[in-house]
Amino acid sequence: MRISELADATGVPTPTIKWYLREGLLPRGTVTARNQAQYDESHVRRLRLIRALVDVGGLSTQQVRDILTLVDDPSTPLPETVGAAHWALARPSETTPSAESLALADRYLQRRGWQVHPASPARVELAGLIELQRAVDPDPAGTTDSVLQGLDRYADAVEALAATEISEVPDDAPAESVVEFIVLGTVIAERTIASLRRLAQESMYLQANGAAPASDA
Amino acid sequence: MRISELADATGVPTPTIKWYLREGLLPRGTVTARNQAQYDESHVRRLRLIRALVDVGGLSTQQVRDILTLVDDPSTPLPETVGAAHWALARPSETTPSAESLALADRYLQRRGWQVHPASPARVELAGLIELQRAVDPDPAGTTDSVLQGLDRYADAVEALAATEISEVPDDAPAESVVEFIVLGTVIAERTIASLRRLAQESMYLQANGAAPASDA
Repeated sequence: MRISELADATGVPTPTIKWYLREGLLPRGTVTARNQAQYDESHVRRLRLIRALVDVGGLSTQQVRDILTLVDDPSTPLPETVGAAHWALARPSETTPSAESLALADRYLQRRGWQVHPASPARVELAGLIELQRAVDPDPAGTTDSVLQGLDRYADAVEALAATEISEVPDDAPAESVVEFIVLGTVIAERTIASLRRLAQESMYLQANGAAPASDA
Repeated sequence: MRISELADATGVPTPTIKWYLREGLLPRGTVTARNQAQYDESHVRRLRLIRALVDVGGLSTQQVRDILTLVDDPSTPLPETVGAAHWALARPSETTPSAESLALADRYLQRRGWQVHPASPARVELAGLIELQRAVDPDPAGTTDSVLQGLDRYADAVEALAATEISEVPDDAPAESVVEFIVLGTVIAERTIASLRRLAQESMYLQANGAAPASDA
């Protein structure tokens, strides 16, 4: 297909596609004539991945580039690729959690039987969140246990979700598809969970406060 | 307490506290002497809220200012305040979902029995996510139904979570605390859910690929 057809198929405007081509995020098409190139299904898929990363994930061009490099490198073993995909998606943190908070995160991971790489950014982020939760908890007594117990309701929910999500990856999928699946799944699922949680809360507050049912919602 | 003690109590460096004071994010202390002011527990709580919004929520100074204005305004009815807190936390979207995707989001909300304001940013975001999920879904047949069904596993999980979270707000809590609770809860819970989901996935991939148990994780 031509670049205008690629734009129609993906909803991404032609100038944006040309910019992705210049930035090297999207591989060049096959040149068929002077000033003309042909694109195929691989370009459609790649454009959708880029759009998800930019629009939903809010990632920078450099972050998108890092993730695409990973997607295109078949040499990394799968578990490391998963970790690296999460790493590329991780948000830079300005604060470093204390050794005590990291120990609490590890204690929690051990309690769940979850084994992750010590350098996993999600492990460091969890430690930071535990630290913050302890800081804002109004109850100073028994805070540690109540914070770790408070994690269980979330962990129970995501453990079931993660198992379902992983079972949907075909066994014979090439590494590229798996990374794409993890990256897209992570970006889309996290935003979907967040949106639905807000909608459920808004609805519960409206109903608890005797609001009239909105006929148009 | 003095500004240095406020810094010790919250872990926020003194220059940052001074910057928040200049920007009007943190109310001034009581002036007790030339070049000296006293701060109290309300400043400690406010600083923790600001830190959560900036560090965990990744919000801009202007977004933090909007949320604090809301937290400090007792005149708004509670359900509207909840909606407005979510609104202030919403990320600006560069793309507008199609009317068809909005109709699908509404169909889904109706199916769940969730009533939200039509202007809720979470509703618009859900429509955008449905649109994206349909675009990347490799199965072109029956896509609409499978996408809406795919939402159920997330909706079931968050519905139970949201109910628990709301039940933890004391009935007689002043509006300021409720907004603070919602904002902090939203920011912390969403990142916690996301981190735990990544950790569960990393662990499942490591175990499925026969990795040796990491003794230090």
